[in-house]
Amino acid sequence: MAKVPSIEGIEFSGVASGIKAEGLDLGLVVFREETNVLAVYTRNRVKAAHILYDRRIDKGPVRALVANSGCANACTGKEGVGDLTAIASGLAPLIDANLRGILFASTGVIGKRLPADAMISALPRAARLRKESGLKSFARAIMTTDTYPKIAHTTFRGKKTYTIAGVAKGSGMINPLFATMLAFVFTDFPVSPENVKLAFSQAVRDTFERITVDGECSTNDTVMLFTRRGQEDADALEAFTDGLREVLKELSMMVVRDGEGASRVAHIMVKGVRKKEWAEKIARRIALSPLTKTAFFGADPNWGRIIAAAGDAGVPLDPAKVDITLQGEMVAKGGAEIAFSEKKMKKLMSRKEISVTVDLNDGKASFDIYTTDLTYDYVKINASYRS
Amino acid sequence: MAKVPSIEGIEFSGVASGIKAEGLDLGLVVFREETNVLAVYTRNRVKAAHILYDRRIDKGPVRALVANSGCANACTGKEGVGDLTAIASGLAPLIDANLRGILFASTGVIGKRLPADAMISALPRAARLRKESGLKSFARAIMTTDTYPKIAHTTFRGKKTYTIAGVAKGSGMINPLFATMLAFVFTDFPVSPENVKLAFSQAVRDTFERITVDGECSTNDTVMLFTRRGQEDADALEAFTDGLREVLKELSMMVVRDGEGASRVAHIMVKGVRKKEWAEKIARRIALSPLTKTAFFGADPNWGRIIAAAGDAGVPLDPAKVDITLQGEMVAKGGAEIAFSEKKMKKLMSRKEISVTVDLNDGKASFDIYTTDLTYDYVKINASYRS
Repeated sequence: MAKVPSIEGIEFSGVASGIKAEGLDLGLVVFREETNVLAVYTRNRVKAAHILYDRRIDKGPVRALVANSGCANACTGKEGVGDLTAIASGLAPLIDANLRGILFASTGVIGKRLPADAMISALPRAARLRKESGLKSFARAIMTTDTYPKIAHTTFRGKKTYTIAGVAKGSGMINPLFATMLAFVFTDFPVSPENVKLAFSQAVRDTFERITVDGECSTNDTVMLFTRRGQEDADALEAFTDGLREVLKELSMMVVRDGEGASRVAHIMVKGVRKKEWAEKIARRIALSPLTKTAFFGADPNWGRIIAAAGDAGVPLDPAKVDITLQGEMVAKGGAEIAFSEKKMKKLMSRKEISVTVDLNDGKASFDIYTTDLTYDYVKINASYRS
Repeated sequence: MAKVPSIEGIEFSGVASGIKAEGLDLGLVVFREETNVLAVYTRNRVKAAHILYDRRIDKGPVRALVANSGCANACTGKEGVGDLTAIASGLAPLIDANLRGILFASTGVIGKRLPADAMISALPRAARLRKESGLKSFARAIMTTDTYPKIAHTTFRGKKTYTIAGVAKGSGMINPLFATMLAFVFTDFPVSPENVKLAFSQAVRDTFERITVDGECSTNDTVMLFTRRGQEDADALEAFTDGLREVLKELSMMVVRDGEGASRVAHIMVKGVRKKEWAEKIARRIALSPLTKTAFFGADPNWGRIIAAAGDAGVPLDPAKVDITLQGEMVAKGGAEIAFSEKKMKKLMSRKEISVTVDLNDGKASFDIYTTDLTYDYVKINASYRS
C-alpha cells in the first residue's frame, strides 16, 4: 500500500459528487486506448442496474469505467438503467468515447435511485482530475464501510516489465460464493481472450470465492479485469497468471481482514474428507456459524461449536473420527476433548489470525476458507447503516 | 405462566447438583405409572450422548426422565453414554423403576463429561422433592441462557377434562429445521400410537420448525411427548390434536421471543410463490440473513436487504414482480421503492413484533417463519458463554 501503482495509458480520479453526504463517491477510470474487459457479476437473482446495463456491452472494447459508492442503484427498475445511459451520455463527449465503451459499477444502499443530475455535473471535474497516478483517489471513491482503500499490485517480466494493479471495496454483504462487492484489476499485459478467461476464473475461484464475512450475497458484486489489446506476450503468460492470482489474493485478504466489525480473521481448513464438495460444505458451514464466529470474537477455544457446525453441514460425517486443531494445538481427537490448558488456548486464540483445522480422517479431499469473527461492531455498523 | 399446571401421576423436581457453579441444573420427572413416549431428535450428524442412549429405549414405556443443564454431554464418546447408565443405575432403585424406563436429556457446553458422581449424589434429594406441582422447578433446572422458565398448558374435554402441559428451554443454537434444544410435553390423554405420531409430527412441523434464532442446529435438540397408556378417548382426539398444537406453538413462540439477545421477533411471510419449497427457502434465507436481522435491531425499514436475501435463496425470482410490506405498509412494489415516510416507518419498525410480507406475485404457495433480530447481546452472550 505504500507505493500506489500506475499503468501507462490508464487514468484515475475520484470526486465528491453529492451521492453521499460527504467524501469521495464517484470514481472514474479512463483508458486512453480501447481496452479488453472481462467481468464476473453476482449470482444473486436480484441484480443492480449497472449489471443489467454492463452485460449488454461488456464484450466489446471499453474506454471508461464509472464507479460510485453511496447508492447501489439496485431495485430501481428501468429508471435505474436509464440513469446510467444519461450519465454515459454526459461522459462520452468529455473523453471522446462512444456510449458503448463506458461501463458502470455501483455500491451502497439498495432501492434508491442515483442522483444522476448531480453525478453528470461532477463528471467534468472527474475527467479533468484524472491521472495515471490517481488510483488511490479512485479507491477512496468506491469505499462504503471499508476502513481503508484497498489496492494491491505486482510486476512481472516479459518482453517488457508489466504491471497488474487491483482495487477493491468490501466490507459487508460478503458472501460465501462470490465474496466481494466491487473489485477492478488493470494491467498493461496483452493477453488472448481465451487465456485471460481461464486465468481470471481460476484466480477468482481461489481467492474471492474463498472468503466470507457474513454470508450475504450482494445485488452488486462485480469483479472486472481490464487487459491491454494486442498480440499476447506468450512467454510471460505464466507470470501473468501467477501475478493475477497474487493481486486477487491480496485484495481478497484485505476485504476479509477489513470485514465489517471484524477483529480477527479465521482460516478454516477442512481435510481428510471423501469428496471435495463435502469438505467445502463443512468449511462454509463453520465459516458462517454465528456461534463459532462469536467464539472467535471471545477468543474461546470452543471446539464443540465447530464440530456442531460441521455436523450440521448436511454431509456424511462420523463424529468419532474427527480431530480438531486450533492454532496448531489439537484440542479434540476422535470427536472427544483432549485436555488442554484453557489459559494457554485463550492466549493463542487472542491473536489476530486464527487457524482452525478439522480433520475427518475419512479421505483425501480438503477445502479452506477465510472468515471473520462476529463482533459488536458488525451489529453496530449494520443496525445503523441507513440512518 | 401465572398458573403452573399439574397432571395426576406425573411428578417433577429440580435441584442444584453442581453441574453449574450455581442454580438448579438437574430436573427429574417421574411417572407413577408406565407412560408412552414419542421423541424427535436433532438432525445434526453429531448427536449428544443422551440421544444415542435414549434411541435404544424410547420405544418402550418409560417411568422417568432426567434432564440437566450446564453440560451437553455431547462429543464425550462411549464414556458419555456410560455416564448415563451409571446415573440411571443410581435412580432406578429410588423410584422402583428398571433401567430401560429412564430417559435422559442434556443441554449446555459441548465436549465436557457430566459430573456423574455429583449427579448421582443429588438424585435422592431430587426424588424426595418431586411432586405433581413441581413443573416450574423442573423448568428452571433445564434453563441455560433462557431469561425465564417456559411453560405452556391447555385443557380440553373428552370423557373427562384432560390437560396438556409443556416445558421448553431455548435460547441459542436455535436452528432453521428443528428449532429448540429441549421441549417436553406431558398429558393424561390416552391416545393410540398411530394417532399421536401423526398429531405430534404435524404439530412440531407447524411450530418448532417455524422458528429460528441463529440458524444453528444443536447436537442436543430433543422434543418428547409423554402420553397416558390405555384405551384412546377417540371422541376427544381432535381436541387433543388442537391442544397439542396450541401448547407447542406457545412454547415455540416463547423460545423465539427469548432468543439469545433478541429485542424483537419478526414474522416473515413469503407468498405468491409457485412452489411451497421455494417459499420456504426464501423465508428461511431472509430469516437467517445477518443484514436483515441487524436492520430489524436498528428498526430500519431496509427492504433492500430483504429483497437481496430473497434473491440469494437459490430459487427462481423475478425482482420486477416482488412487493414488500413491512408492518402492513407496502414499501416496495414491482421490485422498486414506494415513497414512504422514514419517520413513520422507523416508528412502526420499533415495535416488539415486526411483520414482513414478501409477495412474489407468481403463484399461490406460501410459507412463514418467526425469527429474532441480531443484537449486541447475542454477540455478548456467545462471546462469553464458556468463560
